Amino acid sequence: MSVTAAKGFTAAGIAAGIKESGAPDLALVVNTGPGRAAAGVFTANRVKAAPVLWSEQVLKGGRLSAVVLNSGGANACTGAPGFQDTHATAEKAAEALSAATGAEHGAAEIAVASTGLIGLRLPMDKLLPGVETAAAALSEHGGEKAALAIKTTDTVHKTAVVTSPAGWTVGGMAKGAGMLAPGLATMLVVLTTDADVPAEELDAALRAATRTTFDRIDSDGAMSTNDTVLLMASAASGVRPGRAEFAEAVRAVCDDLGQQLLRDAEGASKDIRIEIVNAATEEEAVTVGRTIARNNLFKCAVHGEDPNWGRVLAAIGTTDAAFDPDELDVAINGVQVCRGGSVGEDRDKVDMRFREVRVTADLHAGSASAVIWTNDLTADYVHENSAYSS
Amino acid sequence: MSVTAAKGFTAAGIAAGIKESGAPDLALVVNTGPGRAAAGVFTANRVKAAPVLWSEQVLKGGRLSAVVLNSGGANACTGAPGFQDTHATAEKAAEALSAATGAEHGAAEIAVASTGLIGLRLPMDKLLPGVETAAAALSEHGGEKAALAIKTTDTVHKTAVVTSPAGWTVGGMAKGAGMLAPGLATMLVVLTTDADVPAEELDAALRAATRTTFDRIDSDGAMSTNDTVLLMASAASGVRPGRAEFAEAVRAVCDDLGQQLLRDAEGASKDIRIEIVNAATEEEAVTVGRTIARNNLFKCAVHGEDPNWGRVLAAIGTTDAAFDPDELDVAINGVQVCRGGSVGEDRDKVDMRFREVRVTADLHAGSASAVIWTNDLTADYVHENSAYSS
Repeated sequence: MSVTAAKGFTAAGIAAGIKESGAPDLALVVNTGPGRAAAGVFTANRVKAAPVLWSEQVLKGGRLSAVVLNSGGANACTGAPGFQDTHATAEKAAEALSAATGAEHGAAEIAVASTGLIGLRLPMDKLLPGVETAAAALSEHGGEKAALAIKTTDTVHKTAVVTSPAGWTVGGMAKGAGMLAPGLATMLVVLTTDADVPAEELDAALRAATRTTFDRIDSDGAMSTNDTVLLMASAASGVRPGRAEFAEAVRAVCDDLGQQLLRDAEGASKDIRIEIVNAATEEEAVTVGRTIARNNLFKCAVHGEDPNWGRVLAAIGTTDAAFDPDELDVAINGVQVCRGGSVGEDRDKVDMRFREVRVTADLHAGSASAVIWTNDLTADYVHENSAYSS
Repeated sequence: MSVTAAKGFTAAGIAAGIKESGAPDLALVVNTGPGRAAAGVFTANRVKAAPVLWSEQVLKGGRLSAVVLNSGGANACTGAPGFQDTHATAEKAAEALSAATGAEHGAAEIAVASTGLIGLRLPMDKLLPGVETAAAALSEHGGEKAALAIKTTDTVHKTAVVTSPAGWTVGGMAKGAGMLAPGLATMLVVLTTDADVPAEELDAALRAATRTTFDRIDSDGAMSTNDTVLLMASAASGVRPGRAEFAEAVRAVCDDLGQQLLRDAEGASKDIRIEIVNAATEEEAVTVGRTIARNNLFKCAVHGEDPNWGRVLAAIGTTDAAFDPDELDVAINGVQVCRGGSVGEDRDKVDMRFREVRVTADLHAGSASAVIWTNDLTADYVHENSAYSS
């Protein structure tokens, strides 16, 4: 159902020839109204791709009529010419959409998102005609095709939908399989809703949702230059939802998509849920969880199904969070292998055969908690990320 | 030549049976004087192994008569009983050395260092008799054997010597092959000198040396619980060297041993020299270098001999160092592949076939610089660190 599950949206996904493989590589999502309120959250990386710089600027107006997304090239680190390419893409989309729909579209309300190799210009001779092709292919059933066209190394396309009994829907699509990290995983996400929600409320709901979902997935610690999450509201349902109810729907869709990203992370064989409890502050709980999530020795141990809690403690010890080393408790898949900073239950009791591995660390320093998700480190991850440029 | 290159030292390395393989696993280095001044630098990890807690305390006195080192077990996260084991080891060494040498040795001047799996008690029924065996085997030619006995996954033992024309020597041995990271790599290092140098000068020289050598090797970003670097001075040469000359000799030995650790890092196929130039401060240069060194996608790219400068920029962008993204320059093996934050020379000109890979990033934000060394991320690294506990 994807981005066309909500009323008031059309979408398309086509092969423009940006990818040499000939696979779909260009998606268009269009808000047919009546509303055009929108919000966006972008990478915290200071090296930002041209489409991020463009779309951040566009979103300041709180309105979007459409978004153009391409795989096959990130258009990052491409300087002023790369920014011109993004601008030209938005202008071409405005022109094509005005012609195709009869409604007026301006580039200033069209976001652009790109994903692929950094440091290469996009083949504009293929991309711009592709925008016209996509505009002509727009459909109220185009959500799946759009989700397919934004894949890079994703093995499956990712979509999610939540529908309220009150008659409104939040739907979405996502891509991302590597470079998953905080300040958003490397991913492009487009969420749509037919609820009638003003831009500032969309913004608040989206920021709250990403903070505890995408931002707490840290597959490989590498933050991208292109992360983009957009939320567009058509108001086509005519329903104005309660603030909390709407925020929860956005969170649920983000959480669902985030888990799909994690399960499809490049080369991973395990999804690791790291819960930090009894931290002094939520921020410290996140820091400790993230530090464990980024420890290559720990990630290798999980890959080897080795309940090596010593590597968990060694990781915690590198943070400046409040804790006493002699009071740390660690459980792996429910077995308390470390108690009071020292040997606990027999590690042979830990069963790590399944894909999901749960690590809980108790800091005994307060009452705050947080969950960080990561993946194991595998030879397949190395192969996928050394065998070709991405 | 190792730790017995300097006059006034004896050493031994024996198999005590701590390692199930029967390989050498216990080393003893003894200062036969006339001086006993010493200094130590230890892991910055807040989760510290029992021998680190013990030896830090011992070194506060600025004197060491001996150090006992074992491989086959880290004695970390073993609680109060583990600390008692370390204490008992030092007491046993004092007793055995007093008996073997006729000179008085007290536990309060004996350091202990351990390396191996975290979270397991040491087999004291093997270790304590091993200390007696080692004391009986002490020799002025025992340096190599001691260096062999501290190996864990090291494929070779590491030693280095610098001799001054003025008649004094600094020698040393090191072990370390995984968990190499800042705040010292995971490693045990013992340096000896027959120069006549007071404890406070040893301490200053050792801290200055480790800060720009071991502390700037970041093989896999994982900081250990056991890192220990000791410097013992016998004064047996009778020569009091100039402060700067002595400091430089200590630095040279640390640098030599550090490079040996890097070249023997678990599973690595490349040694990567990351130089950050024109940073606002040295601290920022180190931070940026370390951030690149810890980026798994960059490390995989180097393994694949792919001059993927986009991953370098994406890593730099996650720091808060002073720089303008549009002014970043990156060279790989001398080819300026990124200029002004955008595409530079043709990446196909970069030859990455050799083991050493040089990355230079120019921040154009000041005049400070720093060099950080790391390794590539390989399937062999994953295999070595997932196939068994360590």
